[in-house]
Amino acid sequence: MKRIMLTVAYDGTNYHGWQIQKNGETIEGILNRCLSELLQEKIEVIGASRTDSGVHALGNVAVFDTDRRIPAEKFPYALNARLPEDVKIQDAREVAPDFHPRHCESRKTYEYRIYNAPFPMPVKRLYSYFSYTPYNIEAMREAAAYFVGIHDFKSFCSADTQVESTVRQVDEVLVEKQEDEIVIRVTGRGFLYNMVRIMVGTLMEVGRGHRLPEEIPQILEAKERKAAGPTAPACGLTLIKYEFL
Amino acid sequence: MKRIMLTVAYDGTNYHGWQIQKNGETIEGILNRCLSELLQEKIEVIGASRTDSGVHALGNVAVFDTDRRIPAEKFPYALNARLPEDVKIQDAREVAPDFHPRHCESRKTYEYRIYNAPFPMPVKRLYSYFSYTPYNIEAMREAAAYFVGIHDFKSFCSADTQVESTVRQVDEVLVEKQEDEIVIRVTGRGFLYNMVRIMVGTLMEVGRGHRLPEEIPQILEAKERKAAGPTAPACGLTLIKYEFL
Repeated sequence: MKRIMLTVAYDGTNYHGWQIQKNGETIEGILNRCLSELLQEKIEVIGASRTDSGVHALGNVAVFDTDRRIPAEKFPYALNARLPEDVKIQDAREVAPDFHPRHCESRKTYEYRIYNAPFPMPVKRLYSYFSYTPYNIEAMREAAAYFVGIHDFKSFCSADTQVESTVRQVDEVLVEKQEDEIVIRVTGRGFLYNMVRIMVGTLMEVGRGHRLPEEIPQILEAKERKAAGPTAPACGLTLIKYEFL
Repeated sequence: MKRIMLTVAYDGTNYHGWQIQKNGETIEGILNRCLSELLQEKIEVIGASRTDSGVHALGNVAVFDTDRRIPAEKFPYALNARLPEDVKIQDAREVAPDFHPRHCESRKTYEYRIYNAPFPMPVKRLYSYFSYTPYNIEAMREAAAYFVGIHDFKSFCSADTQVESTVRQVDEVLVEKQEDEIVIRVTGRGFLYNMVRIMVGTLMEVGRGHRLPEEIPQILEAKERKAAGPTAPACGLTLIKYEFL
């Protein structure tokens, strides 16, 4: 028996998120099916990050166990031949049999893109959220700086989630203008449900002048979902990097 | 009667190219339909560049005539409300009644993207051609330089096309590495059918070491399609800019 770790990239547009469910195709579901067919045994992957419906990934992580003797490095080729165009394995390696991607120290980087121009641009529509309003990037940067550090992010977590602790560590929040796009890049050690999208929704309100950067500490302090801004739409969000520390 | 010029952006993935045809949706077809519905008169646009099936555009150009008194600058809003997500108007302005986008001096810029990594990346698949082979960028640049100037591009034109002259002026060919992508940007005064894709297909052969940069002048000299490399796939190509001189 060995444990294999896969790095999985996907375009989330046509999926109901990572986590398997009864109705609708999911990334976890398609991986289980392709792996089970390939290995002729029942495989159930353990995912690192259960991304929402419509969210993309350049490198999410999943592990599974197998008795088969296929070398780890063969899996990207064998699986990619079975997977659809919008889900592709980027890497596969053997890991310790007790390695669990959600129970170990890790750092994730998410990128949120806002296509900020007078009219929507078709080739950007799947990976950037379109908004024609002007944004004050400098104010967004000031606001973003307040997120860095160890804070209780309860205000930035979907109200219906139950977790033991809502304290999380954010390492970096960058706000950058790249031609017609505003790119918000968030690196942290684990995130609450919808946390990045609520942070981005709140930063967008700051960018539009509806809130001041100095309000972020008060929003954190409030520890209730309604203190923060709206949840930014899924399509602009991509999980770009996963590091195990 | 006034003539309106539209700047049209589209994701070509789901279209049978620009030019109207009996079977399959085209950009010209959808523009004619939306404009005719909007203006309640039969509209037939004249396109500047009849892009192939699967090719994208950030700014192709179309003109049409109307008797209606709608100000030009209202057209992007009115049309975008009717157009699907993968076709969007970026600009509209009134032009001289005899302005014809194919019978005037213009400069077009095309961009071809090659996603060059070991495995395909889902979020790149619609706008970049995937290739895992290593490419020699320096050799591609050397080869590209031979295209610049006024040449007979007969070898770089689909064999079944009939045009008066196959002489064209290419102003610039840039080959650039952008992270995992190779970007080839071609600017010129008009192009033959499939010319950019055949130029790119030939540059890719140079990049893989199957041809030398010094062979480009001989290929131009040969004046026959089979002397050049293959036609690169459509999905990697985007018409990024149209300038009227």
